[in-house]
Amino acid sequence: MALSENFRKKLHTIIYEADTPAGKFFDLSLIVIIFISVAAVMLESVASIKIKYGYELGIAEWIITVFFTLEYIARTVAVKRPWRYIFSFYGVVDLLATLPKYIGLLFPGTGFFIAIRAIRLLRIFRILKPTHFVGASDQLLAALKKSRVKIAVFLFSVIVLCVILGTLMYMIEGPASGFTSIPTSIYWTIVTLTTVGFGDITPATPFGQFVSMLIMILGYGIIAVPTGLVTAQFINEKTPVNTQVCHNCNAQNHRDDAKFCYNCGYKLN
Amino acid sequence: MALSENFRKKLHTIIYEADTPAGKFFDLSLIVIIFISVAAVMLESVASIKIKYGYELGIAEWIITVFFTLEYIARTVAVKRPWRYIFSFYGVVDLLATLPKYIGLLFPGTGFFIAIRAIRLLRIFRILKPTHFVGASDQLLAALKKSRVKIAVFLFSVIVLCVILGTLMYMIEGPASGFTSIPTSIYWTIVTLTTVGFGDITPATPFGQFVSMLIMILGYGIIAVPTGLVTAQFINEKTPVNTQVCHNCNAQNHRDDAKFCYNCGYKLN
Amino acid sequence: MALSENFRKKLHTIIYEADTPAGKFFDLSLIVIIFISVAAVMLESVASIKIKYGYELGIAEWIITVFFTLEYIARTVAVKRPWRYIFSFYGVVDLLATLPKYIGLLFPGTGFFIAIRAIRLLRIFRILKPTHFVGASDQLLAALKKSRVKIAVFLFSVIVLCVILGTLMYMIEGPASGFTSIPTSIYWTIVTLTTVGFGDITPATPFGQFVSMLIMILGYGIIAVPTGLVTAQFINEKTPVNTQVCHNCNAQNHRDDAKFCYNCGYKLN
Amino acid sequence: MALSENFRKKLHTIIYEADTPAGKFFDLSLIVIIFISVAAVMLESVASIKIKYGYELGIAEWIITVFFTLEYIARTVAVKRPWRYIFSFYGVVDLLATLPKYIGLLFPGTGFFIAIRAIRLLRIFRILKPTHFVGASDQLLAALKKSRVKIAVFLFSVIVLCVILGTLMYMIEGPASGFTSIPTSIYWTIVTLTTVGFGDITPATPFGQFVSMLIMILGYGIIAVPTGLVTAQFINEKTPVNTQVCHNCNAQNHRDDAKFCYNCGYKLN
Repeated sequence: MALSENFRKKLHTIIYEADTPAGKFFDLSLIVIIFISVAAVMLESVASIKIKYGYELGIAEWIITVFFTLEYIARTVAVKRPWRYIFSFYGVVDLLATLPKYIGLLFPGTGFFIAIRAIRLLRIFRILKPTHFVGASDQLLAALKKSRVKIAVFLFSVIVLCVILGTLMYMIEGPASGFTSIPTSIYWTIVTLTTVGFGDITPATPFGQFVSMLIMILGYGIIAVPTGLVTAQFINEKTPVNTQVCHNCNAQNHRDDAKFCYNCGYKLN
Repeated sequence: MALSENFRKKLHTIIYEADTPAGKFFDLSLIVIIFISVAAVMLESVASIKIKYGYELGIAEWIITVFFTLEYIARTVAVKRPWRYIFSFYGVVDLLATLPKYIGLLFPGTGFFIAIRAIRLLRIFRILKPTHFVGASDQLLAALKKSRVKIAVFLFSVIVLCVILGTLMYMIEGPASGFTSIPTSIYWTIVTLTTVGFGDITPATPFGQFVSMLIMILGYGIIAVPTGLVTAQFINEKTPVNTQVCHNCNAQNHRDDAKFCYNCGYKLN
Repeated sequence: MALSENFRKKLHTIIYEADTPAGKFFDLSLIVIIFISVAAVMLESVASIKIKYGYELGIAEWIITVFFTLEYIARTVAVKRPWRYIFSFYGVVDLLATLPKYIGLLFPGTGFFIAIRAIRLLRIFRILKPTHFVGASDQLLAALKKSRVKIAVFLFSVIVLCVILGTLMYMIEGPASGFTSIPTSIYWTIVTLTTVGFGDITPATPFGQFVSMLIMILGYGIIAVPTGLVTAQFINEKTPVNTQVCHNCNAQNHRDDAKFCYNCGYKLN
Repeated sequence: MALSENFRKKLHTIIYEADTPAGKFFDLSLIVIIFISVAAVMLESVASIKIKYGYELGIAEWIITVFFTLEYIARTVAVKRPWRYIFSFYGVVDLLATLPKYIGLLFPGTGFFIAIRAIRLLRIFRILKPTHFVGASDQLLAALKKSRVKIAVFLFSVIVLCVILGTLMYMIEGPASGFTSIPTSIYWTIVTLTTVGFGDITPATPFGQFVSMLIMILGYGIIAVPTGLVTAQFINEKTPVNTQVCHNCNAQNHRDDAKFCYNCGYKLN
């Protein structure tokens, strides 16, 4: 790049760091503009608003798109290895937040893919990083990650169960009650098992209602499983952290009342 | 104020304290009248009752309004620093519980703002303070407060997720199935993710139903998070924290009522 | 009573005890008959079945009623202090399970109060008492009882919240969207907050939908509270039970690794 | 059997074991074919797809049926005691996954019982056995099994409660609001108590709505019970059970990897 190294460093400080007033101002502006851009997309989708303020919203969206484009270029320029940013999760999202608007110029009707920029809202978590919010969200993610195998087993079992029960309900109720096909019937089963219960499809035969009752009570029961898993994880996360370290072998995680190292038998201070 | 200091003190004892028979009678009357006032507002909103008993309810409401006004004046007079009460949460609620009725005289049609007095029901918690209910509610609030950062992170993530998923569903289903705009679509997503499932809007296309299933299973899974957070907090609240240390052998974690060290039998101080 | 003491004792053994073959047979028959009686009441309520088998069901119900009456008389006779049984919970339920049928003879149309006999199903818990089911149900009840003050505070707070939010929704939506009165609006709020979501009433205005979203997310969050309370209780119930008793002062609940009594400092064996 | 023992052993290795490349290939193929078979049954139930691709799907299903039949025969042949497999859960499911197709040839219209093969999806758990998924699912099952008596007591209580409340709602609302019979009314009660809330039947009278509110709040409260049970079980599962006792000072509850006593520093055996 033809940019002076000095300028690149300055840009990096503003965009990627938040310690300087300029960096803080940039982060804050970005959050505000992301919010405005999401609000603009939302409002434009409301027919009555589009009729009234369609022109103004259109201009606002173009201003935001240009800003996002400049931001994207700046981000690419400000880092030493631009490809790393470009192919990162946030890099792809940032690109997808601007590109559809330009493509929409060439191929009208695809403009609504701009809605992808709602994903940019996630950047807020990044920007807020230095605050104590991160500790909490990290703990949340850690607890979820640790129980992810169990959650996967649980979810797969639930899906198999829904396929079996959905097929059963299709055989019992049939198209007459709205169970028009097995996929629709599985959709109904998931709606019921998760206790959502839209009511767009409901069993009409006594036997179908009987099986529904069993499904509902089952759903009521198995909601306990993910809750139990995550709760147990949260509690285990919180088990007292003993900071004592053995001076002889550096073993950690001693009992609170340990007098000797469990690993080498050395007396703890 | 021209009121004698003696009278002010007496009034304070009756209104703000509950140790004397007069104070107890005042508190009890207030609870009863608040309940009656809420019931009257409720009943007046029922068309058939308003036709029959509208006149009587109207009189009852005026009596209650006058009582609440007198109570408000008394509360202001009874404390040394009236502004502190006036600008407190309960002071504002107390004022808002009477004012709309008078304003309704000048500007008809605003009378239903009287419904604000439902908030006065919260005063019951205040009045019941000396009972053992407070211990329980304090513990509840303490546990919720301690996990409030995590709950905030969780709720913000859920809302961002709902914006993204709502926009997606708007793009999939569109106005034909009732997803008339992105805000409406987000409303549907929250209705679905929280397992409420009104059924006023439901996906009609197979792909929309497929994405709905994922949203429902997701909602089923993430309901575990706030539950896990609060439960972990409740349990941590309850783990006995005993700071006593044996002076002879340094053993910790004694029972709260321990008189002797469980480890060496030495008398604890 | 003119009954010989011997006969009374025998009757008591059969009805109230389950150690003899006759007692076991009585208990089993009673469970079966209660189930049949509940099934008969259920079936009679189904119009198509009543038309076909109304006569047979009527006879069956009379036979059961006579049996229940004889059982009631026998229970009264078999105990030394009959009033104690008569005014006990089960005594009142047993009477209410027979009486409506006789009253129905005099005042037709009240016959369906016979449905009260569904409550007799609870007797199954009594009859199964000697089995290991009781340990489990006792533990369940104990855990619920211990957190009952907190649950009461929680429920009262939820109800106050529903009154306030219901009134608010009535002011926002009004009768046009089905929020015909404040009580109806509170009904809707509870339907929404508990994530039931019937969909018989749904918000139509954008602002109403916005407030609904907040209510739903709130409901999603506060469902964690009762769960957390009961879970914490269950876990505390289960804390290791140490059976060691001090030989000097009989103190119990020592730490698992206690060497000396926490109460008197006496060496534990 | 006339099969050579050598061939039987080889077959057993392929079908029942997963250590050889052939065994792994067999397992993988089986999973893929089960998925295809379930997908085919699902797709055939969609009217529009059946019209278009009915012929192709029919052929695919016959190929799968023949494969499943061969697999069934191979499984019977490969084990020494075939009856043990035939009467095992998976043996019965495997048979039921093929038989209906043949019976459908003789008696048309029963073809959809082929849907039973959705149950074959459960075999995936078997096939994945050697992976770390099993540890997780075993733990899940163990926790559920240990709390099964309590869950049974809880479910039975909920059902009794639903019978009583359903009968009550039938008496309050009656056929006019859709509560056409007591069984229907019990169906509604379960729909409400489990917070599913279809909305196909909703209370219309003020008193019915009032009782509904109580049922909903009750449902909101008692959902805590299964969650609490399972969570408590999960947490208890995880508390380290270490039976090691120090030979020098009798200290217990050592870390699983402890080599020396935490209390006296004595080497553990």
